[in-house]
Amino acid sequence: MSDAGCVFCRIVAGELPCHRVFEDDDTLAFLDIGPLADGHLLVIPKPHHERLETMPAELAGRVLRHLPRLAAAVLRETGAAGYNILQNNGAVAQQEVPHVHFHIIPRAAGDGLGFRWRPTRYPAGRAEAVREAILRGLGE
Amino acid sequence: MSDAGCVFCRIVAGELPCHRVFEDDDTLAFLDIGPLADGHLLVIPKPHHERLETMPAELAGRVLRHLPRLAAAVLRETGAAGYNILQNNGAVAQQEVPHVHFHIIPRAAGDGLGFRWRPTRYPAGRAEAVREAILRGLGE
Repeated sequence: MSDAGCVFCRIVAGELPCHRVFEDDDTLAFLDIGPLADGHLLVIPKPHHERLETMPAELAGRVLRHLPRLAAAVLRETGAAGYNILQNNGAVAQQEVPHVHFHIIPRAAGDGLGFRWRPTRYPAGRAEAVREAILRGLGE
Repeated sequence: MSDAGCVFCRIVAGELPCHRVFEDDDTLAFLDIGPLADGHLLVIPKPHHERLETMPAELAGRVLRHLPRLAAAVLRETGAAGYNILQNNGAVAQQEVPHVHFHIIPRAAGDGLGFRWRPTRYPAGRAEAVREAILRGLGE
């Protein structure tokens, strides 16, 4: 459940330092060392899982249940007007450390951050086909 | 637990249509109608909560435990190389519908999407002060 070459596993094991703000049996939350804003947190499962899609559902639930309380504390103490929760899977999606981590990113007007939003529209029939494919993928 | 003026509450109530891919007592998952990529999903709690920081921990856990399985199905069926999980809180963070929703955004090389990454560094002593503030915010 731990990967000796993984920097986040080494933080969990206490072999590397971090600015820890919360910990329980399943979860560790600490300051990102290259923050996009003051108070930028990382929330990670202690066991090593490279990407979210292979993480057990129950572990995901036990880790992610802490997001509201952590976000509330970040908001209150930084005075940020809002925040993004972001979790990246794969190099194509900007994942840098191959251990699941959820970012809590405090936001301020004019900060130059945010997700590039280029919405499309499904042509006729396409949404139905995509839905059917995903249902198939879910085994339903 | 429902807001008559909220478009997502109306989808939950069946008053507005959606391309639904998953549902249980707490959770609804459906295709975003303005997708950033084919298979772009929204995963929402059925009860109305405007922002994540006010959502009960247990509800967050029960909803978010489904993210791995939903992401796996999206990946498998779209052939995407990766994906982002994104959840926005507040207009400053690009929240458009005031009902908590987690995006699953499939990603491909050269898609022009992604989070604008402008990392900073904490000056000496600042990370410790931010950590102390967040611990205070957590009541610890």
